[in-house]
Amino acid sequence: MSDSSLFIPVILGTPRQGRQSEHVAKFIVEQIAARDRLETELIDIRKMAIATDDAGESIKDPQFSASMERADGLIIVAPEYNHGYPGLLKHVLDTCLKEYIHKAVGLCGVSAGSFGGTRVIQNLLPVMRELGLVTIFYDLNFSNVEKLFDESGNLIDKPTYIRRMSKFMDELVWMSSVLKYGRQEVR
Amino acid sequence: MSDSSLFIPVILGTPRQGRQSEHVAKFIVEQIAARDRLETELIDIRKMAIATDDAGESIKDPQFSASMERADGLIIVAPEYNHGYPGLLKHVLDTCLKEYIHKAVGLCGVSAGSFGGTRVIQNLLPVMRELGLVTIFYDLNFSNVEKLFDESGNLIDKPTYIRRMSKFMDELVWMSSVLKYGRQEVR
Amino acid sequence: MSDSSLFIPVILGTPRQGRQSEHVAKFIVEQIAARDRLETELIDIRKMAIATDDAGESIKDPQFSASMERADGLIIVAPEYNHGYPGLLKHVLDTCLKEYIHKAVGLCGVSAGSFGGTRVIQNLLPVMRELGLVTIFYDLNFSNVEKLFDESGNLIDKPTYIRRMSKFMDELVWMSSVLKYGRQEVR
Amino acid sequence: MSDSSLFIPVILGTPRQGRQSEHVAKFIVEQIAARDRLETELIDIRKMAIATDDAGESIKDPQFSASMERADGLIIVAPEYNHGYPGLLKHVLDTCLKEYIHKAVGLCGVSAGSFGGTRVIQNLLPVMRELGLVTIFYDLNFSNVEKLFDESGNLIDKPTYIRRMSKFMDELVWMSSVLKYGRQEVR
Repeated sequence: MSDSSLFIPVILGTPRQGRQSEHVAKFIVEQIAARDRLETELIDIRKMAIATDDAGESIKDPQFSASMERADGLIIVAPEYNHGYPGLLKHVLDTCLKEYIHKAVGLCGVSAGSFGGTRVIQNLLPVMRELGLVTIFYDLNFSNVEKLFDESGNLIDKPTYIRRMSKFMDELVWMSSVLKYGRQEVR
Repeated sequence: MSDSSLFIPVILGTPRQGRQSEHVAKFIVEQIAARDRLETELIDIRKMAIATDDAGESIKDPQFSASMERADGLIIVAPEYNHGYPGLLKHVLDTCLKEYIHKAVGLCGVSAGSFGGTRVIQNLLPVMRELGLVTIFYDLNFSNVEKLFDESGNLIDKPTYIRRMSKFMDELVWMSSVLKYGRQEVR
Repeated sequence: MSDSSLFIPVILGTPRQGRQSEHVAKFIVEQIAARDRLETELIDIRKMAIATDDAGESIKDPQFSASMERADGLIIVAPEYNHGYPGLLKHVLDTCLKEYIHKAVGLCGVSAGSFGGTRVIQNLLPVMRELGLVTIFYDLNFSNVEKLFDESGNLIDKPTYIRRMSKFMDELVWMSSVLKYGRQEVR
Repeated sequence: MSDSSLFIPVILGTPRQGRQSEHVAKFIVEQIAARDRLETELIDIRKMAIATDDAGESIKDPQFSASMERADGLIIVAPEYNHGYPGLLKHVLDTCLKEYIHKAVGLCGVSAGSFGGTRVIQNLLPVMRELGLVTIFYDLNFSNVEKLFDESGNLIDKPTYIRRMSKFMDELVWMSSVLKYGRQEVR
């Protein structure tokens, strides 16, 4: 493999007021930034001015499209709403298509309850596939999210999550690297 | 059963420009209106001014909430976007919760391809359940939707769809009636 | 409602050696038996001699069919295998069809990990619907199942699970009663 | 890429008497065999003597395990049973685990109805991921399967399916090659 770096942006998938997912996303960005040869950025769907009078690629945001085009892999931080994904997250994801093809994605489920957002992850799987993304088979799960962060938004039990994140990132980097090779070198 | 009528609104689940689902929803509304003892209304998510800077019940639209509260059953017309549901449909659905509980829902999948929106239906199932809705086991499927309607928005092969709709409505009316009895009479 | 009792059998969905789900199923059967006006039985798929050289209704077991026919509701105890359902559970379920229609089902997920079998439950939802069953929106979740029972197969923290089971059963009894009324009285 | 060949076996996922999926699987095997640098074999779950008194890796068939170990990619021919996968297919798949990791899989849905087995495909997606397999985003769909083959088991409209299979195989070969490179060369 070349020694070039990988670009793996993190999508914060809800604009909800009081969202705890923001702390989760910031933790993830911080952890990625601490690894060698990785670049990242936080893409906050709250800050995107996507039209709501239409859907799909016709309302594409050029900056989001450019980030997805440049990405080698993605992390999606998805709080679980009624066992599904946030509507605005899907609204944004649906604005791109070819940008995603043959790239890796790691899913991070966030839930107020004790099951780590597993259900939003399961609900996203068919969508990821149809977008051309390869979902890795490690997930990040943040259960009981209301209790995980202190008042400054820092993880209370940081070592546990650093350890989990490390295995997740190893797999995401592996898959992102392999698919990048494929995009560049195979047919 | 009492001879009171049932209220079964139809949610048109996309604001997309050029949407064919609008023809589908209008056909469904017309067919419901032609049956005895059913009331309906078309709820067009394009016409709802739901906030996009938050999510969930805090941005509830009072009129939508009142319709869901009054409903005995629902029909959701859902075009399939990347094998999932339209984001704005989910954004709207997530604004209510107790309004839906123990009511029936029938799903109508719409797709440009030949598989009748089956994948958006499968993707909605866990969400419907968590909202407290009971999804009936007949669906409406509109495949190849670009070719189904004439220039005036009328179904070209109307008898076929009237026949399918009839079985679907029989089941939806049955389940709506039974659950209404349950809400009113059982414990 | 009539004061007749409801019959709610419990399907133990794996023949696996050393299965912990057996303890779970026995706890559930014991709890149902302690409630008024409920009858139950444990249906252990390990004890069913279902043919494996064919599939579907042609290999129906008459006793299982009779139990499903008589049932007003079901509980399925499903350990999570690779985020899906046990193959032999599905093999058995597929042998009936009309027996299930318009009856309630409550799902009990069992997992070695900490997410309560949520993924096997999500995976079963579309199957339940197609079988004609109505899946209630409370689940039973047994996480970390290897640590929940003592050497005699008794729950170590029984009060917690009795409390959860109570809410689950209230909902299952409600839905079973309502659908029974529907089957008998509506059209 | 090296010029070595890829081994892509085809799993025929039902023992059902009168199965049409057998014709589908044979067509697929024949098409693979006609391409350069691909090897295949038909793995018929009807012919496997997998124990049914246990589940998972403890009942692994050495020959099946060896095939999965050697495989660079897989095709699973899955008829749709009640919107889910055949139980015996899952029973067999669950007997291996590490054999599948970081390999590609293409899914072939078969249905008597007109929706091409899309629902069994959606139902398999989370299982494939947990097994470590990467499901490509092209599928093969055989709708109305009872009408597709003549009395000798040959496709009546062969050119259509050859064309579809060609795109599916291009993608499966690409992903199998890329992941093989990854397994061999990346970390």
